[in-house]
Amino acid sequence: MKYLLMLVTLLFAPLISAEQWIVKIDFWGVPAYFTMNIEYSENKISGDIDGENISGFKNKNEIDFSGNTNGQLTQFKATVERDCMMGIAHYPNESNGAQTHNFTAKLVPQKTSNEPVVHTYLPDNYSNTWDADRDPVLTIWPRDQVVTKTIDSGGFDEHGNIKALFGNPQTGPFFIVGAEPGDTLVIHINKLELNRDYADSLDTIIEKALGSYFANETTGLGRAIKWVINHEKGVAYPENVTGMLKDFSVPLRPMLGGIGVAPGFGWPAISTGDTGSFGGNMDFPEIIEGNTVYLAVQRPGALLYIGDAHAAQGDGETTQFALETSMDVTFTVDLIKGNSLRIPRVESPEQIMVLGQAGTMEDAINQATAGMVAWLQQDYGYSLSEIAQILGVAIQYDVVNLAGRNVGIAAKLEKDLLSPSKGILSRQTSNKGKK
Amino acid sequence: MKYLLMLVTLLFAPLISAEQWIVKIDFWGVPAYFTMNIEYSENKISGDIDGENISGFKNKNEIDFSGNTNGQLTQFKATVERDCMMGIAHYPNESNGAQTHNFTAKLVPQKTSNEPVVHTYLPDNYSNTWDADRDPVLTIWPRDQVVTKTIDSGGFDEHGNIKALFGNPQTGPFFIVGAEPGDTLVIHINKLELNRDYADSLDTIIEKALGSYFANETTGLGRAIKWVINHEKGVAYPENVTGMLKDFSVPLRPMLGGIGVAPGFGWPAISTGDTGSFGGNMDFPEIIEGNTVYLAVQRPGALLYIGDAHAAQGDGETTQFALETSMDVTFTVDLIKGNSLRIPRVESPEQIMVLGQAGTMEDAINQATAGMVAWLQQDYGYSLSEIAQILGVAIQYDVVNLAGRNVGIAAKLEKDLLSPSKGILSRQTSNKGKK
Amino acid sequence: MKYLLMLVTLLFAPLISAEQWIVKIDFWGVPAYFTMNIEYSENKISGDIDGENISGFKNKNEIDFSGNTNGQLTQFKATVERDCMMGIAHYPNESNGAQTHNFTAKLVPQKTSNEPVVHTYLPDNYSNTWDADRDPVLTIWPRDQVVTKTIDSGGFDEHGNIKALFGNPQTGPFFIVGAEPGDTLVIHINKLELNRDYADSLDTIIEKALGSYFANETTGLGRAIKWVINHEKGVAYPENVTGMLKDFSVPLRPMLGGIGVAPGFGWPAISTGDTGSFGGNMDFPEIIEGNTVYLAVQRPGALLYIGDAHAAQGDGETTQFALETSMDVTFTVDLIKGNSLRIPRVESPEQIMVLGQAGTMEDAINQATAGMVAWLQQDYGYSLSEIAQILGVAIQYDVVNLAGRNVGIAAKLEKDLLSPSKGILSRQTSNKGKK
Amino acid sequence: MKYLLMLVTLLFAPLISAEQWIVKIDFWGVPAYFTMNIEYSENKISGDIDGENISGFKNKNEIDFSGNTNGQLTQFKATVERDCMMGIAHYPNESNGAQTHNFTAKLVPQKTSNEPVVHTYLPDNYSNTWDADRDPVLTIWPRDQVVTKTIDSGGFDEHGNIKALFGNPQTGPFFIVGAEPGDTLVIHINKLELNRDYADSLDTIIEKALGSYFANETTGLGRAIKWVINHEKGVAYPENVTGMLKDFSVPLRPMLGGIGVAPGFGWPAISTGDTGSFGGNMDFPEIIEGNTVYLAVQRPGALLYIGDAHAAQGDGETTQFALETSMDVTFTVDLIKGNSLRIPRVESPEQIMVLGQAGTMEDAINQATAGMVAWLQQDYGYSLSEIAQILGVAIQYDVVNLAGRNVGIAAKLEKDLLSPSKGILSRQTSNKGKK
Repeated sequence: MKYLLMLVTLLFAPLISAEQWIVKIDFWGVPAYFTMNIEYSENKISGDIDGENISGFKNKNEIDFSGNTNGQLTQFKATVERDCMMGIAHYPNESNGAQTHNFTAKLVPQKTSNEPVVHTYLPDNYSNTWDADRDPVLTIWPRDQVVTKTIDSGGFDEHGNIKALFGNPQTGPFFIVGAEPGDTLVIHINKLELNRDYADSLDTIIEKALGSYFANETTGLGRAIKWVINHEKGVAYPENVTGMLKDFSVPLRPMLGGIGVAPGFGWPAISTGDTGSFGGNMDFPEIIEGNTVYLAVQRPGALLYIGDAHAAQGDGETTQFALETSMDVTFTVDLIKGNSLRIPRVESPEQIMVLGQAGTMEDAINQATAGMVAWLQQDYGYSLSEIAQILGVAIQYDVVNLAGRNVGIAAKLEKDLLSPSKGILSRQTSNKGKK
Repeated sequence: MKYLLMLVTLLFAPLISAEQWIVKIDFWGVPAYFTMNIEYSENKISGDIDGENISGFKNKNEIDFSGNTNGQLTQFKATVERDCMMGIAHYPNESNGAQTHNFTAKLVPQKTSNEPVVHTYLPDNYSNTWDADRDPVLTIWPRDQVVTKTIDSGGFDEHGNIKALFGNPQTGPFFIVGAEPGDTLVIHINKLELNRDYADSLDTIIEKALGSYFANETTGLGRAIKWVINHEKGVAYPENVTGMLKDFSVPLRPMLGGIGVAPGFGWPAISTGDTGSFGGNMDFPEIIEGNTVYLAVQRPGALLYIGDAHAAQGDGETTQFALETSMDVTFTVDLIKGNSLRIPRVESPEQIMVLGQAGTMEDAINQATAGMVAWLQQDYGYSLSEIAQILGVAIQYDVVNLAGRNVGIAAKLEKDLLSPSKGILSRQTSNKGKK
Repeated sequence: MKYLLMLVTLLFAPLISAEQWIVKIDFWGVPAYFTMNIEYSENKISGDIDGENISGFKNKNEIDFSGNTNGQLTQFKATVERDCMMGIAHYPNESNGAQTHNFTAKLVPQKTSNEPVVHTYLPDNYSNTWDADRDPVLTIWPRDQVVTKTIDSGGFDEHGNIKALFGNPQTGPFFIVGAEPGDTLVIHINKLELNRDYADSLDTIIEKALGSYFANETTGLGRAIKWVINHEKGVAYPENVTGMLKDFSVPLRPMLGGIGVAPGFGWPAISTGDTGSFGGNMDFPEIIEGNTVYLAVQRPGALLYIGDAHAAQGDGETTQFALETSMDVTFTVDLIKGNSLRIPRVESPEQIMVLGQAGTMEDAINQATAGMVAWLQQDYGYSLSEIAQILGVAIQYDVVNLAGRNVGIAAKLEKDLLSPSKGILSRQTSNKGKK
Repeated sequence: MKYLLMLVTLLFAPLISAEQWIVKIDFWGVPAYFTMNIEYSENKISGDIDGENISGFKNKNEIDFSGNTNGQLTQFKATVERDCMMGIAHYPNESNGAQTHNFTAKLVPQKTSNEPVVHTYLPDNYSNTWDADRDPVLTIWPRDQVVTKTIDSGGFDEHGNIKALFGNPQTGPFFIVGAEPGDTLVIHINKLELNRDYADSLDTIIEKALGSYFANETTGLGRAIKWVINHEKGVAYPENVTGMLKDFSVPLRPMLGGIGVAPGFGWPAISTGDTGSFGGNMDFPEIIEGNTVYLAVQRPGALLYIGDAHAAQGDGETTQFALETSMDVTFTVDLIKGNSLRIPRVESPEQIMVLGQAGTMEDAINQATAGMVAWLQQDYGYSLSEIAQILGVAIQYDVVNLAGRNVGIAAKLEKDLLSPSKGILSRQTSNKGKK
């Protein structure tokens, strides 16, 4: 009996006591985040922090352990209260002398089921920044599904009530357990449902589209245009129009203008009007129901945000506001470990797409091409010469976003021209986050 | 009887003696071209030069007449021999003192039929420049059709024989009677038929596409790749491929990379690698069979050139050489008087398209947008506010050409979103050239 | 006695009871700042908020007043404790229904002298963001002087001790009393003194400078280079150099790479690596001792930051790190009311200079030219035609910054070509802040 | 005696009979130029064509020889008449079958003196193109000096008489004996003397400078402005000015806006408004008296053109016309063999400068940096790491030209920072052309 008990203890005790913490070290006011796995065996601590081993001791609610962070020996000393840890991180060997920084840590909740879970989240607050410091609104696991809502870019919800400040307020962040910098977050857009009967736009033609052409004729533009969303007919049209647009309508094509993760170490919270390697206000009309978005994780838990839905949008979002509206959104997340993608990718049933985003169109298209080359190399296994030949006859370049500080240019390829991907989705996803 | 004869004379004599001449005045070595219509009534001359009245006398083969050119009084004195005129143009009133310049003129042939004519032209020489000074290979009239051939960008014909220097040698120029600066030349691409079973390309990724990404891996690229054209299956594939492209093929989509008119006054002959308001080496994959190209006439007779056919091409022509091949080409021309278009337009059964071409992508997309705005204003009658609303939900921007000094970006709109065009093709075309 | 008392009351009571507060209204998590002047007369409140009248009542430490903010009636209700106010701001008339937001306010300290003051501030913390929410380190008045220090871009101080995270940590912010959005903050750089004997740099040539040229030869670059600062000789040179740089040295020319104010409403804190209309990490080699910088105030109090000193820098900061070092800095501030400048200006004894900063060089130079045109219009009184003629013969364009997300291009003009400025410095500066 | 005669024959005969010819082969209408040196020994021919050996026979005025051109065996057969050769060039081994092309050649004159010669050339015609096919106006040798004149960009000479069409008509071309593609042509600007008392300009601010800023205010601009050139005071000022420019004047700083050689094989004549690796309409304000320009020779004899003088010019030539005027020009040429420079260089007594010219400012500055790196590597011997360090503290970037299709950006370095150049000017110049 005694032996059996020991066996049970050996088998299960470590599992039971395994914990994942998100550690935040304060470097002179700038936070750095780490993922720490800790296992307790009596008063001994073992585990890892961002993959580097740690070891130490626990005495009641005092813990003391050390290991390397960013290649530097780090000695942690902290007090633990339930799901909070608070203490100091000491760096004895820094070249410019020993340093000590405050740190805190938060316990990642335990997964309660081995099966994917459907979470419903009705937001009551929104973020105007892509932000690593904002508390998660929901903790989810790879393969979980989320049913939620977004409000429009002006802050108005499905009932036309204002709920946030203008400027693309986002729903989130969602903490994806196990996501670490260097991983790829996979977001399947399961459903995008328009949940109100109007959208707001302008009759602008932005300067990045039109330059100084017609400069003397455009002064009157920039007026608010309300569009009717006709769900039955699947179209939208400007309200109360006379003149030549009387019978004009455009098919509804709901899309997410904003989807992004928290930016990486050293970056402050970034305006939800901006874009980058974290995704952001991409305004890419291919982020629609049925497609999949791949983003580079830059913080533990990824911290996914979504928002700024459009009922329809032309390339370039030349009106500055597309058909801005609210939306019911359902998505599923997944995680690819160890496959850093610094350029956002989108996959449709027919195409693979890469979105280059930069201050000049020249840099954006270079980035898009490079991202496509990388995709074909990494996940399809083509050589550079083979890739060159494919691009030469088949690449498509669309200028999708002209409305922000960065412009966005997409490179696209038809999947049926390509060999089956050995691709990122077929890879083993890590179990690290599923404990 | 006498009266009747007089009447007949009055009615027909001027018509019978009406002639159109292309006048070339030599300004210190730089030619300027004008269209001159002359009618003879006994020894009196009347008519116009670029729309300005002229009058004078003819005495045997000496003629003497005056009128305004470019707003300046011009006195012409010349000798006429058959279809040639040669003499001096005197400007008595120039602000910096009187000037005299040599001029020559060539008689435009008479149209022999009131019906459109099908011309077959088998070229035996090619132009490596968009050139106002090259003698026309054929004189045609609006609504005439031309059946001809182009050789590939390297100068090789349908039999693989070299016929011209590399650098997109063009077939032409075709002189379209009645075309004058300020008009729009309409070219319907009736047929594009691949006439050999291979195309030449490279395994390059050009720097304008890839920037400095993968700089250390691209050194081996730039090799010649021969592609097999399989007419039956309607596909092309690289010859003798092993590796991952073994089963790769791309649908044939024959297109004209080069189509342009002679550049305007003050411009020398321009390399057939270059582009501009005259069209040129646009490498726009929508210049295919069934589509129509609109170009701004810049010289009398327009002087249309075509060449540089591709069996298929991805956006941007990222391999520098697309699938370069020879082609049988059939096209019909038409003319829209007095509707200057400084930005090339293309129309397909489904779309209207404008091609912006400039040194920066920013300028190119501005030009494309402006060209689309102008089209919707001029030919559809939309207001600027209405246009803004249409573009915001429906414009498509494709980066079609990265391989030249100018980049090319196309703006596209679906025609079924738009009101019926009051458009340029439905306008009265001038009869001026049809006498 | 009674009369005297009355007189005293009349003279001093209003002065004594006049207060300036900085109001912060929380719009769904995004703060907006306002300047409020309040005067108490018994229990009545009068004054203004951003220039709009307010009125209300005070009852012990409860206050209740209303007025317009941003053109909307706003009803404030708050509790006052010493220099803090806390309550709610109610908007009864919002088109989408009444809104209520929390607000706080902080009392601006009273000026203790009518004469300009010299403040010495030895920093013990630094900001890695241009940040409107950071507490001021010092409150100063127009014409006051500040004697302070900056640490280098890597966070190292004059003793080589690390004091902040890398990424251009800034000293500040300094709150300038009376500065309001729409004003121009004037910063006279009185002294820039190098306070240590080395600087850190790299042997990089950044891609924005060199593109893909020499791509195969630059792989080894990017090494840290330590430069010796020789104060006596007034030069710097790389430490321990052999080879051809053995005798190389460059004159010291101390400059501030970073100088900026807090970004405006709707902007989150911005990385100290970035630039904008608020100034920022401009890396403009003309921000040297003796020159004056003009920045557009975007938040009450301006919130000025300085940092990232360089011992010397070439145009473009092509090494990514210039000669990064610490500095003793003395500056004087002044304020020009109601003269919004959205483009940073610098003035030297000989030149006026405007710095355009944008994602493309094309936009940056346009901005610089526009800023120069505006300066010559506003402060010199030239017409646009006159300005065109001056620029055509005298403008100088320098590309000063290639190392950030924005590039910086300076437009410069010699002052002795110009008529005496009626200029911004000769205008009446507001007394608002001097109560 | 016989032996002596043989010796003399061996020594002198070949020298006496050595001739240099410029060969022009007509490739389907596109000319290619080669430098051929021929020596006759009885009826035998030896020598070289572009450095490749040739051999053959001469029989009266028929010659027959062969050698490689561009790596291909070429068999020449021609008739010689005085200084003209005319015949065919046969390529028996072309991969696509034998080819035959017409060719002509012109004899290069013999140098009549071992000393440098001063040539005076008073032009009576001008070129509106950078043109390889235009007959030289003068044949000169390295170290020779030329005294000549340029007319203004509008075609007006020193007396205000029109002599050529507007568009920067150039004086030239000058054939420099011995100059071959791959060499560097050195032009010392000895004297630039303004020879009339006015210049023509506009009150424009070009769009590349100002973008769409002030778009609604600039409509009235673009007027002609006549400037008075006051030689005594050394200044220029707008004529008949009232208003604020009444006392405005700018120092004279005569410069050559245009200096270029004929573009290389495959290029047609290029508009004198354009720029490229051949130099051209660079509008670089440092091409002044006392400075030296280095250009890449692209055709045998270089074919140097000069023109478009400015009395003064601001950076960017923002008025489209600078102070356009005529000039007396004296320059000396020299030649550096085998040192291809594809980017124009300028040297002043104090600085070395490289001019990047491209369609985007981004490409232009990259080219300028690369050209400076190349200069420091080739002629000073610095390593890339050393160059990076120098640039980081000392490079200056000026945007000098915004008025053409290409923009021009100069990179500059102070020479006294640098080690003495082992440089291109100290190298042995070839004697090839001096026979």
